[in-house]
Amino acid sequence: MYLTDEKVAVMGAAGAIGSNLTQTLLASGTASQVAMYDPYGPGLEGAAEEVYHCGFPNVDVTWSTDVGEVLTDVSYIISSGGAPRKEGMTREDLTEANAQIAKQLGLDIKQYCPNCKFVLIIFNPADITGLTALVHSGLPPSHVSTLAALDSTRLQTALAQHFNILQSKVTGCRTYGGHGEQMAVFKGGIQIDGTPLDDTLKGQSVNRTSMSAEEWSGIQERVTGGGARIIQLRGRSSFQSPAQQSVFMLRGVLGESYDWPSGAYVSGHGFDQIMMAMPCTLSSEGASWTLPEGTEEDMNALQASYEHLVVLRNEVIEAGILPPLEEWSTVNPNLA
Amino acid sequence: MYLTDEKVAVMGAAGAIGSNLTQTLLASGTASQVAMYDPYGPGLEGAAEEVYHCGFPNVDVTWSTDVGEVLTDVSYIISSGGAPRKEGMTREDLTEANAQIAKQLGLDIKQYCPNCKFVLIIFNPADITGLTALVHSGLPPSHVSTLAALDSTRLQTALAQHFNILQSKVTGCRTYGGHGEQMAVFKGGIQIDGTPLDDTLKGQSVNRTSMSAEEWSGIQERVTGGGARIIQLRGRSSFQSPAQQSVFMLRGVLGESYDWPSGAYVSGHGFDQIMMAMPCTLSSEGASWTLPEGTEEDMNALQASYEHLVVLRNEVIEAGILPPLEEWSTVNPNLA
Repeated sequence: MYLTDEKVAVMGAAGAIGSNLTQTLLASGTASQVAMYDPYGPGLEGAAEEVYHCGFPNVDVTWSTDVGEVLTDVSYIISSGGAPRKEGMTREDLTEANAQIAKQLGLDIKQYCPNCKFVLIIFNPADITGLTALVHSGLPPSHVSTLAALDSTRLQTALAQHFNILQSKVTGCRTYGGHGEQMAVFKGGIQIDGTPLDDTLKGQSVNRTSMSAEEWSGIQERVTGGGARIIQLRGRSSFQSPAQQSVFMLRGVLGESYDWPSGAYVSGHGFDQIMMAMPCTLSSEGASWTLPEGTEEDMNALQASYEHLVVLRNEVIEAGILPPLEEWSTVNPNLA
Repeated sequence: MYLTDEKVAVMGAAGAIGSNLTQTLLASGTASQVAMYDPYGPGLEGAAEEVYHCGFPNVDVTWSTDVGEVLTDVSYIISSGGAPRKEGMTREDLTEANAQIAKQLGLDIKQYCPNCKFVLIIFNPADITGLTALVHSGLPPSHVSTLAALDSTRLQTALAQHFNILQSKVTGCRTYGGHGEQMAVFKGGIQIDGTPLDDTLKGQSVNRTSMSAEEWSGIQERVTGGGARIIQLRGRSSFQSPAQQSVFMLRGVLGESYDWPSGAYVSGHGFDQIMMAMPCTLSSEGASWTLPEGTEEDMNALQASYEHLVVLRNEVIEAGILPPLEEWSTVNPNLA
């Protein structure tokens, strides 16, 4: 009835993402045993009560403000447990505060559940918080990933709206690198109802619609600003789509196919000790990445996005939240 | 892949319940075609964008502030489109404003989708708003129901917490009559891991726990105040559990079993022209009710709850929002 009966921990479960995530794990038949953690007790209890009142059959949902109780015996962890992004903030503004939270999560994992199978970090800037949690957790790199799909689903959404076709008919939308303003929006591989995006840029119509270079630039801007636009429209940052895509990712780990980019620890092929969105296969082994294929322009954008992440990572090292690069393999032998 | 590909309208889709409902319909594989309506355009667009960013496969989600566009060709309607309950308010405080909204929904249904199969009203006081929508819609009474399960799931939750056992092991929790402070909490039929509640009240232990009469009274009070407690804990009224249970109800109409009470139009057997929570079977024919079975105390509580609803209904008639009782069969011949 549920894809797994093993224990799933939702960190930040009192928040908008975490409480939605808990419900969605249960409602979609993904997990039957969910442990909710949040440092804010009343909100956590309220979120748990809401879930109880849903009346899900045959589930075991618990809540606690004691992180050790929640993480003990856990197989899967999804953490939205950072400070949320407010209007006008970039994801990077949150870096230092949330990197500290990620470091503590990594240390807690090392202490309470060193054998957990998969950790998904979804609080911003996820590339940095995911990397920080990985280093301190001691886990194998394939066991820690970040939510990286939303930029791609936003690109798919924007293109479907431009051509006025169903979203599923827009395929191959992928953004790689950082999940920040410097993300790399890949053009190669995108098809609009079977027609390559490049052909529509050369004047070919789909659904009596073509696309100018300016319109494509506008769409790319909409994608990189997609999260900020949600804040403008709703007065709060995205919470449904991160929760939903996190559940899709866990379902990928549990055996379903998952086609969107995921965050992966990458070291090699011109990239060094970084976590960023890559083409990934999710399985019981976690996330395994491959190099993306794209146009020269796409690959240059990826390189630029990577370099932006390196700057952020180095700031976190300078702040003492991550150790110097050469010490990572000591802190986490799985990174050797 | 989805239980239905027919069009489902979510009214109030910019709100917390409505936006959760839209996501849950899709995430649970219940409906693939969802039309989102709300009078507040920016919030509606934001909620729709969030759903698009979820990247659900093979769905058709639309949004509009034009109620006619949303209701045309619709098969199923779920409406959370009232004003929400604030801290300190009873559900009844909302009566007149929300009854007006329900009346307009009924008139819109009559105009745009007189052949729709099922309408579920979930905004408070749901017994009154459901009744008002039914009268003005012209639909057969079995085609209009209200969400009535949350009091029962709250009772199940409170008993599971008292006995410290899994929620699913508490069975037979049912509240009937009004979904207000005057609800009838039925004791007959409740079992705690197979032991009748009555036996635990007589001293029999389950999980090394029994229950005193005072504790049972306290639990009944917690149930009737369950919604208010969520507001205290979370700073906002329940939204996840109403959305989730609404989806369970629609799944009942689409062929799954649904065991909780539902709102039904009842006229006869000592009750007259009222909508209230009853034992119901949901099917493609809508909701069909039977008389509940309970102790004498239970049945007296039901009668009291019914009488409370009669007062509320008569206030709405006096306010001119519902026609006088003798005119109902003219306004809606299906009520003859």
